[in-house]
Amino acid sequence: MAAIRQSWYLVQRPKSEKLEAGKHFEWREEPLPETLDAGSFLVRHIYLSLDPTNRIWASDVPQYMPPSPLNEVMRGLTIGVVEKSENSDYPVGTYVSYLGGFTTHNVVTKEAVAAFPPGKLDWAPGKNVPLTAYLALINLVSGFTAYVGLLETGAMKEGDVVLVSGAAGAVGSMVVQMARLKGAKRVVGIAGGATKKAYLLEELGCDAAIDYKATDNMDAAIKEACPDGVDVFFDNVGGVTLDAAFLNMKLNGRISICGAINMYNEIEGGVSGPKNFGMTLMQRLTVKGFICTDHLATLWAPFEKDCKDWVASNAIKYSVFKTEGLDKAIESLDRLFTGDKPAGAKLVCQISAEPDHIPLP
Amino acid sequence: MAAIRQSWYLVQRPKSEKLEAGKHFEWREEPLPETLDAGSFLVRHIYLSLDPTNRIWASDVPQYMPPSPLNEVMRGLTIGVVEKSENSDYPVGTYVSYLGGFTTHNVVTKEAVAAFPPGKLDWAPGKNVPLTAYLALINLVSGFTAYVGLLETGAMKEGDVVLVSGAAGAVGSMVVQMARLKGAKRVVGIAGGATKKAYLLEELGCDAAIDYKATDNMDAAIKEACPDGVDVFFDNVGGVTLDAAFLNMKLNGRISICGAINMYNEIEGGVSGPKNFGMTLMQRLTVKGFICTDHLATLWAPFEKDCKDWVASNAIKYSVFKTEGLDKAIESLDRLFTGDKPAGAKLVCQISAEPDHIPLP
Repeated sequence: MAAIRQSWYLVQRPKSEKLEAGKHFEWREEPLPETLDAGSFLVRHIYLSLDPTNRIWASDVPQYMPPSPLNEVMRGLTIGVVEKSENSDYPVGTYVSYLGGFTTHNVVTKEAVAAFPPGKLDWAPGKNVPLTAYLALINLVSGFTAYVGLLETGAMKEGDVVLVSGAAGAVGSMVVQMARLKGAKRVVGIAGGATKKAYLLEELGCDAAIDYKATDNMDAAIKEACPDGVDVFFDNVGGVTLDAAFLNMKLNGRISICGAINMYNEIEGGVSGPKNFGMTLMQRLTVKGFICTDHLATLWAPFEKDCKDWVASNAIKYSVFKTEGLDKAIESLDRLFTGDKPAGAKLVCQISAEPDHIPLP
Repeated sequence: MAAIRQSWYLVQRPKSEKLEAGKHFEWREEPLPETLDAGSFLVRHIYLSLDPTNRIWASDVPQYMPPSPLNEVMRGLTIGVVEKSENSDYPVGTYVSYLGGFTTHNVVTKEAVAAFPPGKLDWAPGKNVPLTAYLALINLVSGFTAYVGLLETGAMKEGDVVLVSGAAGAVGSMVVQMARLKGAKRVVGIAGGATKKAYLLEELGCDAAIDYKATDNMDAAIKEACPDGVDVFFDNVGGVTLDAAFLNMKLNGRISICGAINMYNEIEGGVSGPKNFGMTLMQRLTVKGFICTDHLATLWAPFEKDCKDWVASNAIKYSVFKTEGLDKAIESLDRLFTGDKPAGAKLVCQISAEPDHIPLP
C-alpha cells in the first residue's frame, strides 16, 4: 500500500483577516508515488517554519514572489530528511532545508532541484551544529534575513547606533545579536511587554530597550534610548514605530524595511507610508526594502561561516518554540501576530519525529 | 556717502501658510561699509534664484541645513559681480554664484570664503556660456539637483525607464533632458495642464507625458505611459503622485526624493508617507532622499563639464523667467507653488542690471 501524505491546500485567499483552517485551507490526504523518477527524491518533513511571510504568500497583494497558488499545497520552509532517493547528490539520510510546503512529505523532482536546490544541512553527530541552530539561526527566514537586512541593506558598520523593532522576535533577536557581534556602538531593541523588555536587556545584551506597550510617545522613547540618533533602523513592524524612527535618524541614516508585521492581517488594504516620510529628504535617508533570497549567491557563504563560528563559540543565543502536528499549523501561525510565544524563539511546527539517535541541545 | 543695501530680513516663521512680505519678512535698508577687511570683497547681486527650498529654509521644521536664522537676511542663491575687492582670488569684475541672500549687495568675508567658497563663473564675452545657462542649468538648485538626483541617488543607467514628476519645472525639465542625454530607454514626464504636457512632448522630447490635472487615476496613467514599469522615479511632488508611482516600480527600482512641492506650504504639519509604501518591501525598492550639496566634491566637476558640452552643442534647452526687483521677490516666490510661469523656466528675481556689454541669448 502506498504511503499517504497529509497537506494543507490553500483554497481561498484571505481578505483583511487572519488565516483560518477550514476556510482558507483544506486538509487533504493523498497517496505518495510508489516509484520515483530519475533525479527525484522523497523528503519526510520534520519541521515547518511558521513565519509572517506565510500571511503574505496566502494573499494576492503584489509581493516579492508570486503568491502561493490556489488549490496547491501552501508554500512554507521546511527541514526534512531524505527517505528514498534516485538522486546521488541527495542520498537517503541527507538533511535538507527548502520550500517543501505545508505537507508531511514531498517528492522533489529534478526540475525543482535545478530551479532552487534544497540546502543540505551538515547536521550529524559530531558536527556540532544542532538542528535547533538550523531552525532558529542558520536559515533563510530568520537568521539570513537578519544578516542581509542589517549588514547589506542597512549597511551597518562598526560604531553605528542600531535600533531594531520586533526585537524579541525570531528575526529581531538575531539582528540585535548580530549588530553587537559586528561591533555596533549601541543596540536598542523595541518589543511589547515587560518580559520581552527584560529579555532584550538581560539575555540579548541590548544597551537600552523600549516596551512599546508601556510607551505613549515612541518619539520621546527613542530619543531617550538613542540620544545621538540612529544610524541603522531595522524595521519589522511598520506603523507608529516607523513614524517615530523617522524622527530620530541621523544624517545619512539607513532604514532597512524587513516587514510590517502589525499590518499583515490587513495587508489587502495596502500598507500605509510613514507619517514623517519628509525626513527621508531632510536627513538624506536611504529607505530600502529587501528580500534575503536576492542575496543568496553572494552572502550565504559568509553568513553560514559567521553563524557556525558563533554557534561553536556560544556567542549567540537562539531557541525554538515548537507547536505539535501539521494539523495545528494554521492556528499556530497566529502566534506570530499575537506574540504568544517565548521571547526570541523561532516558531516552528513539528511535523514528524526527529531521528532519536541525535541529541539536541 | 556710504552706499545703501536693501534686504529682506526673515522676522517671523510661517505656520502652514505661504510666505508673505510684511508678515514673515521685513524690508530693511542699511549702509554698506566704506572699507573692506583683508580677504573680503563686495558683490553686487544681479539675480536671486527663487526656489521651493526657500519655503523650507524660512520654516523651522527639521531640515537639511539649519533654518535661515530669524532677524537675518533671508538665505537665497545669487549670481553677482565683484565690485570692490581685498581678495586677489576674487578681483573686481569676477562673476560669482553663492548663497548671497535676499539682498542687493553683500560683503563676503574671508571666513565665509573659507566655509563655502563662492563659485566663479567663467561667463565672459567669447566664453560661450551665457549667463542664462548659469541661472537655469549650471547651478546648485536646478541643474546640479537634477544631475545628482538622477545619476547618483537614482543611479540611472542606460536603458532605464525614467519617470519624472514636476517635469515642466526648473529641476524636472533638466531631469527629463539629462535622462535622454544619458541614454534612458524611455522618459515620461508628469505636469499639470495641456500646455505643460505639450511642452514635455514637443520641446523636451518625452516619450509620453501625463497631465495630472486631467487624470483622475494616476496609477492607470502611469501604467499606460510605462507599461513595463519604472526603473527610476525622480519625485519633486510627493502625495498622490508618489503613491501611484510606488505601484509601478520595477523590481529593484529606485525612487529619488528631491522634494514634495505640493506639501511645502503645509510643511510644518509634517509630510506624510506614501500610501503604497509596502511596495518598498515587495519590490525591493530603494527610496532615497538627497541634497545635492553633499556631492559637490565628487560630482560638480563632471556636472559642469557635461553641462558646458550640452550648451556648446545645443543639446539641452533651458530658459529663465525673470521677475523684476528685489522688493517683489517674496510675492514672486509664490509662482513656484501656483505654477504661474512658463513651462521649463527657472524662476529668478532680477536685482540689478546685467553688464550691458555682454549679449545674452
